[in-house]
Amino acid sequence: MSRLWSPQIQALSPYVPGEQPKILDLVKLNTNENPYGPSPKVIAAIQAELGDGLRLYPDPNADRLRATIAEHFGLTPRHVFVGNGSDEVLAHAFLALMRHARPVLYPDISYSFYPVYCALYGIAAEVIPLDADYRVRLEDYARPNGGIVLANPNAPTGTALTRAELEPLLASNRDSVVLLDEAYVDFGAETAAALIPRYEQLLVVQTLSKSRSLAGLRVGYALGQPELIDALERVKNSFNSYPLDRLALAGAVAAFEDRDHFESTRQRVIATRARVVNELTALGFQVLPSSANFVFARHPEREAKQLAAELRAARVIVRHFSLPRIEQFLRISIGTEAQADALLGRLGELLR
Amino acid sequence: MSRLWSPQIQALSPYVPGEQPKILDLVKLNTNENPYGPSPKVIAAIQAELGDGLRLYPDPNADRLRATIAEHFGLTPRHVFVGNGSDEVLAHAFLALMRHARPVLYPDISYSFYPVYCALYGIAAEVIPLDADYRVRLEDYARPNGGIVLANPNAPTGTALTRAELEPLLASNRDSVVLLDEAYVDFGAETAAALIPRYEQLLVVQTLSKSRSLAGLRVGYALGQPELIDALERVKNSFNSYPLDRLALAGAVAAFEDRDHFESTRQRVIATRARVVNELTALGFQVLPSSANFVFARHPEREAKQLAAELRAARVIVRHFSLPRIEQFLRISIGTEAQADALLGRLGELLR
Repeated sequence: MSRLWSPQIQALSPYVPGEQPKILDLVKLNTNENPYGPSPKVIAAIQAELGDGLRLYPDPNADRLRATIAEHFGLTPRHVFVGNGSDEVLAHAFLALMRHARPVLYPDISYSFYPVYCALYGIAAEVIPLDADYRVRLEDYARPNGGIVLANPNAPTGTALTRAELEPLLASNRDSVVLLDEAYVDFGAETAAALIPRYEQLLVVQTLSKSRSLAGLRVGYALGQPELIDALERVKNSFNSYPLDRLALAGAVAAFEDRDHFESTRQRVIATRARVVNELTALGFQVLPSSANFVFARHPEREAKQLAAELRAARVIVRHFSLPRIEQFLRISIGTEAQADALLGRLGELLR
Repeated sequence: MSRLWSPQIQALSPYVPGEQPKILDLVKLNTNENPYGPSPKVIAAIQAELGDGLRLYPDPNADRLRATIAEHFGLTPRHVFVGNGSDEVLAHAFLALMRHARPVLYPDISYSFYPVYCALYGIAAEVIPLDADYRVRLEDYARPNGGIVLANPNAPTGTALTRAELEPLLASNRDSVVLLDEAYVDFGAETAAALIPRYEQLLVVQTLSKSRSLAGLRVGYALGQPELIDALERVKNSFNSYPLDRLALAGAVAAFEDRDHFESTRQRVIATRARVVNELTALGFQVLPSSANFVFARHPEREAKQLAAELRAARVIVRHFSLPRIEQFLRISIGTEAQADALLGRLGELLR
């Protein structure tokens, strides 16, 4: 705290990302990364871009990437905004679209960056509790608001709403933006992207960090009608003209072009998730129904915080949140089959 | 403009970056890129990082890069903040350090992103005119303020202040941050980094886009005492945990490690600048004294806007700003000797 700081900075409680350990032999199931590497075509595309051309600025409008993403979703480039990871896209969306007299609504248990954005930009917020089963109850969002933000699947719970469940919310909430954060959607939920032509207030945010195995490249995007995209562009162009570097732009295009790699890796994750859910249940865990590349589970007889520490001592890292209502849960990323063996084996020993 | 937008977004006038043409055979002297490519060691370092590891998030704290930059400047990692280009670093600095009751001060003719940041974050600003010779007159900044922002060398003028000229400002302005934007410093000006241990309110911002030939990789940084760096970290961690991807982190470290490449390329640019200044002067241009990798020049008998258009028709692109006081100037980046030949040859024809 300092007299030199802007006053509101003193009150910020920044987001704390999961640990990125520098020790190499850990079974790392704490930040929901994909256990399988990116497409070899991504590597080849970056390779082709790597050279003297790095002296030149990237395309500030990311035309080629936006066209590629648009084609994937049956939209036009004017329906697509790209940014440095979906966190940057979300930050711009909060500032561009959520700062109104009425509060933005989001669940009490969801991605913990949402309240951080609100604090950063002075956005009023109202937290809506998940129900007793940790599910979003959409009727609770039928109230005056300056925006609605839902992660679907939700994080860290992993539970998802169907497009059919969501559409009535869109039909009835037309005067503020409904932002669906679909970071995990490719692991078993339904994207709402197909609803964009019908709802001018719908913004869908996705990322290449999870289902496209590119957390290390930092690419996210938003889909919506051009009027919403224009608002994001205005903020982006008032902040940083070139958030995506030349290598990230090239790699991201290639990631969309290799559909086979995308399909096969996400199916492998989904298959391992089914096994992990079964075996955790057999070990006595209660596991919330997951449509994501992680599971959220609690054991009725064990302190979650201590269990996380014991796993860590056994070289398996998972994520524990010391937060109300979920302090007895562990969020466990879905890894390879070998990582699942390690996780389940060590849990079996700890619970014996 | 839309009822769905946050109200203040409607009033933004975003920054407009220089054109990144998709035509390949232009002599591109419009965005102050380095005409020489990055160090081969940068390419090798990125190559070594390129693989399955892209599935994992980067180090959110950029420890290795911060340590490398700190060592270069004789500081500690706690004195270093890194971001996605110096534009992102500047944006965070405006929000973290410049939003006070008193206005931030900057020159009327300077980097045109400064007023954009102020509009984005609702920061009061007071514009201080350059003198009749387009130089910063430091005594004009001795007035109540919430921060002082000076580009040194200034852009688009190219003129620089010495460290000895700047130090009295630091000695007398101790209660608000003095931000020195040194994007172009390596082409002939003096960095104020050595003053950081003595002035807690000094923040120095630099970039790898110019003197390190990495505009396409998006890496910038700030140097200051830990209390100022902490404010930037708070904003960054409330916005995007991982603004630098794995490839950018690896390449940036290597760029600092290859001092020979850095020295030889900047000396070549400085030598070509001397030639370009001489020959432009011989063609009748008035050229402001430049310490940057560009020159700012006007011809007493030619409309700058039309001259820029004629150069463009002859496949040479330079930057023209339709702004008060400088509308008769052209900003011309320093390219290779061959690009200088092309520029000067075509100007010779146009002015014949």
